[in-house]
Amino acid sequence: MNTFGQIFRITIFGESHGNGLGIVIDGTPAGIGLSPDDFSNDLLRRRSGAAGTTLRKETDIPHLMSGIYNGFTTGAPLAVFFENKDTKSSDYDKVQEVPRPGHADFTALMKFGGFADPRGGGHFSGRITLGLVAAGVIAKKIIDPVKISAAISEVGGETDLSKALAKIETSGDSIGGIIQCIASGIPAGLGEPFFGSIESILSHLVFSIPAVKGIEFGSGFASARMPGSSHNDPFVSSQGQTLTNNAGGINGGISNGNDIIFRVAVKPASSISAPQQTINMKTGNLENLQVTGRHDACIALRVPVILEAVTAVGLADLFLLNRSRGKEHLRPGFGTKI
Amino acid sequence: MNTFGQIFRITIFGESHGNGLGIVIDGTPAGIGLSPDDFSNDLLRRRSGAAGTTLRKETDIPHLMSGIYNGFTTGAPLAVFFENKDTKSSDYDKVQEVPRPGHADFTALMKFGGFADPRGGGHFSGRITLGLVAAGVIAKKIIDPVKISAAISEVGGETDLSKALAKIETSGDSIGGIIQCIASGIPAGLGEPFFGSIESILSHLVFSIPAVKGIEFGSGFASARMPGSSHNDPFVSSQGQTLTNNAGGINGGISNGNDIIFRVAVKPASSISAPQQTINMKTGNLENLQVTGRHDACIALRVPVILEAVTAVGLADLFLLNRSRGKEHLRPGFGTKI
Amino acid sequence: MNTFGQIFRITIFGESHGNGLGIVIDGTPAGIGLSPDDFSNDLLRRRSGAAGTTLRKETDIPHLMSGIYNGFTTGAPLAVFFENKDTKSSDYDKVQEVPRPGHADFTALMKFGGFADPRGGGHFSGRITLGLVAAGVIAKKIIDPVKISAAISEVGGETDLSKALAKIETSGDSIGGIIQCIASGIPAGLGEPFFGSIESILSHLVFSIPAVKGIEFGSGFASARMPGSSHNDPFVSSQGQTLTNNAGGINGGISNGNDIIFRVAVKPASSISAPQQTINMKTGNLENLQVTGRHDACIALRVPVILEAVTAVGLADLFLLNRSRGKEHLRPGFGTKI
Amino acid sequence: MNTFGQIFRITIFGESHGNGLGIVIDGTPAGIGLSPDDFSNDLLRRRSGAAGTTLRKETDIPHLMSGIYNGFTTGAPLAVFFENKDTKSSDYDKVQEVPRPGHADFTALMKFGGFADPRGGGHFSGRITLGLVAAGVIAKKIIDPVKISAAISEVGGETDLSKALAKIETSGDSIGGIIQCIASGIPAGLGEPFFGSIESILSHLVFSIPAVKGIEFGSGFASARMPGSSHNDPFVSSQGQTLTNNAGGINGGISNGNDIIFRVAVKPASSISAPQQTINMKTGNLENLQVTGRHDACIALRVPVILEAVTAVGLADLFLLNRSRGKEHLRPGFGTKI
Repeated sequence: MNTFGQIFRITIFGESHGNGLGIVIDGTPAGIGLSPDDFSNDLLRRRSGAAGTTLRKETDIPHLMSGIYNGFTTGAPLAVFFENKDTKSSDYDKVQEVPRPGHADFTALMKFGGFADPRGGGHFSGRITLGLVAAGVIAKKIIDPVKISAAISEVGGETDLSKALAKIETSGDSIGGIIQCIASGIPAGLGEPFFGSIESILSHLVFSIPAVKGIEFGSGFASARMPGSSHNDPFVSSQGQTLTNNAGGINGGISNGNDIIFRVAVKPASSISAPQQTINMKTGNLENLQVTGRHDACIALRVPVILEAVTAVGLADLFLLNRSRGKEHLRPGFGTKI
Repeated sequence: MNTFGQIFRITIFGESHGNGLGIVIDGTPAGIGLSPDDFSNDLLRRRSGAAGTTLRKETDIPHLMSGIYNGFTTGAPLAVFFENKDTKSSDYDKVQEVPRPGHADFTALMKFGGFADPRGGGHFSGRITLGLVAAGVIAKKIIDPVKISAAISEVGGETDLSKALAKIETSGDSIGGIIQCIASGIPAGLGEPFFGSIESILSHLVFSIPAVKGIEFGSGFASARMPGSSHNDPFVSSQGQTLTNNAGGINGGISNGNDIIFRVAVKPASSISAPQQTINMKTGNLENLQVTGRHDACIALRVPVILEAVTAVGLADLFLLNRSRGKEHLRPGFGTKI
Repeated sequence: MNTFGQIFRITIFGESHGNGLGIVIDGTPAGIGLSPDDFSNDLLRRRSGAAGTTLRKETDIPHLMSGIYNGFTTGAPLAVFFENKDTKSSDYDKVQEVPRPGHADFTALMKFGGFADPRGGGHFSGRITLGLVAAGVIAKKIIDPVKISAAISEVGGETDLSKALAKIETSGDSIGGIIQCIASGIPAGLGEPFFGSIESILSHLVFSIPAVKGIEFGSGFASARMPGSSHNDPFVSSQGQTLTNNAGGINGGISNGNDIIFRVAVKPASSISAPQQTINMKTGNLENLQVTGRHDACIALRVPVILEAVTAVGLADLFLLNRSRGKEHLRPGFGTKI
Repeated sequence: MNTFGQIFRITIFGESHGNGLGIVIDGTPAGIGLSPDDFSNDLLRRRSGAAGTTLRKETDIPHLMSGIYNGFTTGAPLAVFFENKDTKSSDYDKVQEVPRPGHADFTALMKFGGFADPRGGGHFSGRITLGLVAAGVIAKKIIDPVKISAAISEVGGETDLSKALAKIETSGDSIGGIIQCIASGIPAGLGEPFFGSIESILSHLVFSIPAVKGIEFGSGFASARMPGSSHNDPFVSSQGQTLTNNAGGINGGISNGNDIIFRVAVKPASSISAPQQTINMKTGNLENLQVTGRHDACIALRVPVILEAVTAVGLADLFLLNRSRGKEHLRPGFGTKI
């Protein structure tokens, strides 16, 4: 399903080498100032070009098709469209016949019976995340003054990024990485029991980013090795501030006002230059396949801004949901506990 | 939001110390044989009683209120209800005034303004997962012959469970654990781009289980430290079998026919006997709090069957969604690629 | 699908002659005062007993299973359960073999392959609307001070109800009716383009009530015969008050602050004592069928309170959705048009 | 909310005088042959130009942005975009200051605080239905060989259309109309209890079409004046064929295999040349307003193809949902009733 969200709801479409791709962003309140320039910074951060990223160059200009008038959001859905221009589709002719290990070629064949667009991964391509970044720009405005910031913690097991990248540049291999994301300035009370916990919403969105293999909140996997006496975060203020933040800012699925912190594991890019064993679906024979074309050697490098975007998208929806709850209990005839 | 799923859709309700709790299970196909006994095994596995689990004893008898007739599902929603009997609510009188570290007391107060049922965690309690286990029983029948099996890999950092439990029994502290879940016999093609990847659906459900802090699929966080040449799983058959399974049985969010494998981190239980620093919300002063009552020292021990249940729930929905796609391309006038 | 609503979300379950039936009501704000007595009036209005209604007698006591604590809603889902007691299931043994004209016997057979609970219509029974009435009680509190009031305008083509009922009492036949529903005190601005217009939401809910065959808002079908110069409602105040109300209080799917008015057509009850031609599904032969058992001769009589309930349910959801939009444009840095 | 549907899910966006408008169509099975020409016939039927329709001329060329490859659907979402070219926006400068009776100007102001795009009705415009027609083209292919056909039954109270249109041409007034829609070749068993009845789904979609004021299925409002003995449709075959079709092809919300029949009332266009009383929102004074610009005198004339489209959209979703139910009861170990 290509739609996500209860109130702030995004619908994604497009392919890597088709006419283009985009996103429809629904549920945005009216009156938010918005210009095409507001997208520039995040789209630039997502673009390729640095060491370890693909040679494909796209201008990534966001076409705002709807939902904006006189520089403000109107309350109607925003549609943002990006064109594909620098495509070399001949690279992908045979991927469903001889599926590339690690890619979605085989599963796309199983699911869509040979009709999926194979060029550049089609709808499975990381390029589709461009729409997520666009939605993130809007979402960040909705949750303002909350700040979200994601950064690479390590690539290929190294914290010295340039060293790691130098290594793969010569080898033709690829590497993965770990990214940490922090959302600060979060009000307490976001998150909706039982299936709308912050962790559920964010992990759902995060795993829609291609190549993500794991997520952990706060102390995460390390918490499984800690005693409760070390893991519990002692309160230090009646606003909910805690001395430590093993909870990652979340208790019972709901924000406690401390920073929301999580980490994400990104696998190494599946496209590598070394020959790999695969199967020819027509003949049934094993084959050695050498993947050509232009690829990222370390896709993790491009993930931070996408991670910020989906975090903002998830929190914006939870923010709007939470606001819908209102303050009934303060109305006469209702409860007045707090 | 207390409802999850597109076609196989569950709606959860209830509290730890109220009248009871339950689940409404919608989208179950008609004609599935079902008796109250079918629930016994999984409910028993979830029950407390072993070392490391709470002294609270509940009979956990599933009351099937609807959706079953003459021993078969009818196609109408199944409602399953469980009564609460062994409750000692006096234990929980002050938790919103003096919130317990690690629990949802403070966040519930922030979100619901003091009206949440505080007894035993109310709607935040791990007891609510009883409904998930009931839904899992139905879901497992839908995805039959797929087999799902979850087991503890380690508790408190130890793989020797009895040693770890002996340690905390004397200390009054709590410990976490790691659980691995494997689904085998999965057909290729389950999972729905872009927001219905298997990882998105399963992580969404898994993080609704209280105390889960992390999830990783296949090689997970380790994949971030592997080169692509080691991480890519070479194909060894045209049915999609691979030599290794770093992908955890999933490419592009879609099952590839190999086992789906993931691991989950569970934090140590928040209730410990040692005094902890907290804040008195009325006075604003810091206080030392000693949590009493009956608790699990290692909630991870009770999670495997719940993990199986949510995995079955997620896969059942993806199975029904996938079936809705049908085989259009085999109809005359349609495509016939495969 | 047995769940409806975006924020105020109801999930319905149960059968006419099974253990019982009920509803889970999610999205209710915390702090609303609620006691079992609050349900009495509307449940009583729905009950049978008057001329033209069935002899079946049920106490219809609402069991509040969850979501309430110390007399207030908690913010967690409310589950309300009703038991079935006065059931005579032998009456319904053969309905899927020899389907009754006008009933859902044949379609249930086609859809559920013979596994649907046939007793008293099973999940198709009008008795299931008891859950809707319970949800309406909560919804009415959320939208307070909006008042909703539905009343019979005519039965069997007559506005003199007692005359119409007297006629069918002797004939063994059944009659339909028309009900008008008015919601007053509505704030302007409820309703969500494009698929969440007030008419879309209310008609969706209204057609879930068994036996409803038509709905019209404001001038409705008569508007198709009016010129625009008569149909347009002239404004008489800057609060949006209009001289006439052909719009039924709705423009562009959004409330304009005038009364919301609509009318609903209810067909005559399908159970009549006269013999009817049907088909024996086993033999394939035409048969004459005489329906016995206890039935309403005029189900329209019981619909007004159900109509109020679903109207309240729909408006409560739209009210909460509208509140989620907030007043962004009044924040610094945002638009400030109004 | 601008998204509708469970599996076959459409997301609509755009404005009457902005860059354009469109729709994202998700859930389409892979392998359906599709070319831009397939849209021509229905888009042409929707276009203006005949007597009684607006002078605005748009080419209405569908731009297929995604979801199609080598002439077949891919299983990924289809995005269809239409440009706006023949716009004269100066006509709409003052509509939120001096709202036009019958239009959404006032309600848009109340809801979106003055930020809605006022030009040509913005997102409220009938022009947005172009996206519905595009979705209908896809939906009709999914439900093939079901045939849907809608036609005007009367305009302005007359069945002689040319006479009615001649009358208003000279008067500058507008008229409404009634449209009947028939879907034939429907398999029995479509429709999902409790909130997914055919009537609920179709009415929800139909009331998203601007200017619709009422809908009735089968005998509709007339059924309220019929005795049950006349209203019940006698069966004449074990395939469910009935002698009459007062049910409109639906029992218990589920298709019975007979034609689905419903009628829709469309109000007269709100834009008329005669002066109308309205209010100046700035001054608070009553004003006389004369609406200029290019408008349809009888929008009902353009509704049939839109009605067909939304009917196809709703039925396609119900068809895919029904297919997800499968035939469990025929599997060994499951029920085998039929």
